[in-house]
Amino acid sequence: MSNQVSNQVFINLSESIQRTRIAAIALAKLSSDAKNAALEAIAVALEQQAEIILAANQKDLADANANQLPSALIARLKLDPNKLKGMIAGVRDVIRLDDPIGDRQIHRELDAGLVLERLSCPLGVIGVIFESRPDAVTQIAALGIKSGNGVILKGGSEAINSCEAIASVIYQALEALFAKQGGVSPNVVQLLTTRAETLAILQMDKLIDLIIPRGSNQFVRYIQDNTHIPVLGHADGVCHLYIDVAADLDQAIAIAIDSKTQYPAACNAIETMLVHSAIAANFLPLALAAFQERGVELRGCDRTQKIIAINPATESDWSMEYCDLILAIKIVDSLEEAIAHITTYGSKHTEAIVTEDPAIADIFMSDIDAAAVYHNCSTRFADGFRYGFGAEVGISTNKMPPRGPVGLEGLVTYKYRLVGHGHIVADYVGANAKAFTHRDL
Amino acid sequence: MSNQVSNQVFINLSESIQRTRIAAIALAKLSSDAKNAALEAIAVALEQQAEIILAANQKDLADANANQLPSALIARLKLDPNKLKGMIAGVRDVIRLDDPIGDRQIHRELDAGLVLERLSCPLGVIGVIFESRPDAVTQIAALGIKSGNGVILKGGSEAINSCEAIASVIYQALEALFAKQGGVSPNVVQLLTTRAETLAILQMDKLIDLIIPRGSNQFVRYIQDNTHIPVLGHADGVCHLYIDVAADLDQAIAIAIDSKTQYPAACNAIETMLVHSAIAANFLPLALAAFQERGVELRGCDRTQKIIAINPATESDWSMEYCDLILAIKIVDSLEEAIAHITTYGSKHTEAIVTEDPAIADIFMSDIDAAAVYHNCSTRFADGFRYGFGAEVGISTNKMPPRGPVGLEGLVTYKYRLVGHGHIVADYVGANAKAFTHRDL
Repeated sequence: MSNQVSNQVFINLSESIQRTRIAAIALAKLSSDAKNAALEAIAVALEQQAEIILAANQKDLADANANQLPSALIARLKLDPNKLKGMIAGVRDVIRLDDPIGDRQIHRELDAGLVLERLSCPLGVIGVIFESRPDAVTQIAALGIKSGNGVILKGGSEAINSCEAIASVIYQALEALFAKQGGVSPNVVQLLTTRAETLAILQMDKLIDLIIPRGSNQFVRYIQDNTHIPVLGHADGVCHLYIDVAADLDQAIAIAIDSKTQYPAACNAIETMLVHSAIAANFLPLALAAFQERGVELRGCDRTQKIIAINPATESDWSMEYCDLILAIKIVDSLEEAIAHITTYGSKHTEAIVTEDPAIADIFMSDIDAAAVYHNCSTRFADGFRYGFGAEVGISTNKMPPRGPVGLEGLVTYKYRLVGHGHIVADYVGANAKAFTHRDL
Repeated sequence: MSNQVSNQVFINLSESIQRTRIAAIALAKLSSDAKNAALEAIAVALEQQAEIILAANQKDLADANANQLPSALIARLKLDPNKLKGMIAGVRDVIRLDDPIGDRQIHRELDAGLVLERLSCPLGVIGVIFESRPDAVTQIAALGIKSGNGVILKGGSEAINSCEAIASVIYQALEALFAKQGGVSPNVVQLLTTRAETLAILQMDKLIDLIIPRGSNQFVRYIQDNTHIPVLGHADGVCHLYIDVAADLDQAIAIAIDSKTQYPAACNAIETMLVHSAIAANFLPLALAAFQERGVELRGCDRTQKIIAINPATESDWSMEYCDLILAIKIVDSLEEAIAHITTYGSKHTEAIVTEDPAIADIFMSDIDAAAVYHNCSTRFADGFRYGFGAEVGISTNKMPPRGPVGLEGLVTYKYRLVGHGHIVADYVGANAKAFTHRDL
């Protein structure tokens, strides 16, 4: 990697991220009120500068159209007065979230006068790399400030004018407030604009504490493979729905349709449906009719194709994230076979079962290794807002926490603080060792 | 890496770890009673087979002496009836620890009949690679079983006979209990014996969920750099003690002596002492006398050498983990300079300040980025047992949790379980969207 990035880019960028790091150390100590005041100032400035932001976005849209970018991308890129209102409301939503910093998770006397605390604290500086959506700038800046972290942002090149306009409004709002009453330094949020800078920050494990990539599977996997910085996110979202022998078939159809079609490009949409052989002959014709009505292409295993006339699914279909109106179907003879298939091909994101048998559901939910295991509901519920977290920084398929939809808690860590009065360990070992009291306070 | 490991080793090992993985899935669902019964059976078997274990250890000791291994290593390797008793008591200590599995961290109604839970669950299979200490086998096996995880162990080659004897006692104890009443499968614990196997498991990110390396800095760094599996642990432990201008000097001496000499090879021992210039002339002669009495070699910056006659410290001393009776000393002119030095050279492990000024202590403890920040006490308290965790799986200097001394909580993750009655997301979007209740239960 290092030979792809010039030394000068690296040095300049290090210095500038160092400024964000220093600003973040001060931010970590600010009160909730000071952080919320900064967020309100940002919201007001975004309202006042709406015209400038929309004009910059028009420029990006014109370029995108001239370059014939895909229409889905252009839709995500586009800002209008309504979307801007939503963006600003999102900043104010973060004001209302509980401050995640300073939470005392442990408070324990180890011995008289020797007191241990475990307090939540910010991670430091977070790098967020995203594609097209310019509204990500305000959302991430707001979450970063609330959680006491500096944020380094890099948007997609197609959104560069919009992102620069928004970042500049945020900077000016923070600068004006800081000049007036101190508080959050404008240096806590920084926008990068070049690919060389993105490559460079992946090497800065001394300056950046967490990388959150938002984008295609390939993009996320590239980041995971090319940095020593912890990465919060997920590459694949190959989710399954298993229709058990004891399923309510109407419910199964409704859940299958929602899980596939409600937003097919989402990571929590299903890619494969597993169907128990004992109900396949009854269920599959109903499924075929329902999916065809919604324009979904079905691809089936050999046994499925003997029941309904659909395209064949090959081995590669079982690990494919279509992000589209395509669904693979496989017939299995048992719960165990369903679990084995999911264990082999799933990406530990969200896995669901439809069954009226609670014992079967229990086995499924215990034995499946995934961030989310669902019973009789759509996989599309896997989302921080739907879980009631108020905000989502991403969905993690890591095994170690934070896992699944991650709210503000993904942006904090903790520190142990121990305060004594000259306490030394030598007094607690050997023949006349003092005993610890280990009394929770 | 892969060309260092033959295909056949890789395939055989994968199959055998797969057996541990399957055993771990069953283990994850067992009650605390079933897991504790297995631990008690192991403790009893260790008592009954003490002679066999000690005989195997004698063989390792003879080989170690013949190979002229360092005496510190031989001391760690050596088992005697007393150490064996301690090992067995350690297994029974784990029986008394709270079961970390099944803890309901979130219980929330998202809407009528749609209930979200977040439950703690095992990670799956953990790989622990350690050097010399054969007692690690029982400790890790016990922690693994209690936390519902399969464990793959690899001890140092110098301890191979001891480790195999202990692993075989554990296997037989579990096998006998399993034949009698079911419960914990003997396959949950597996001992590897070759370096080729160790290299191979680093590549098995589908089969192993966490690697815990215990050993030298170099060894830990090698593992961190050569696997995609999460690593819990720390390479360096470069800890500092800062003696502030407002320090009680007697207390400062006592804490400095304890932090350096109580166990110099420990990761939480200090390597560098920072001294405020305003008290250096008073403090350093006292420190010199106290450290010389305990045979500690002092190395000082230029200014330190003008006050006391000691060897010079060079740039490389500031980032050195001596693991020995050597201490580097640097004079600083301010709290800020002390913090800047620690930020540059520290390893985010444990950092301490001695001061009677609570405002100064507060700034130090907020601004230093480390797993542990201490005020007026020895850095040697950074330890899971001293914190009252009952057991320690390691000390992590990662920024993301778990951080610092890690008890059983480092061996668990969580899963979101959502149970509905046919709930679909389409009902919660659009014009007639139902609202979520988000009511904690």
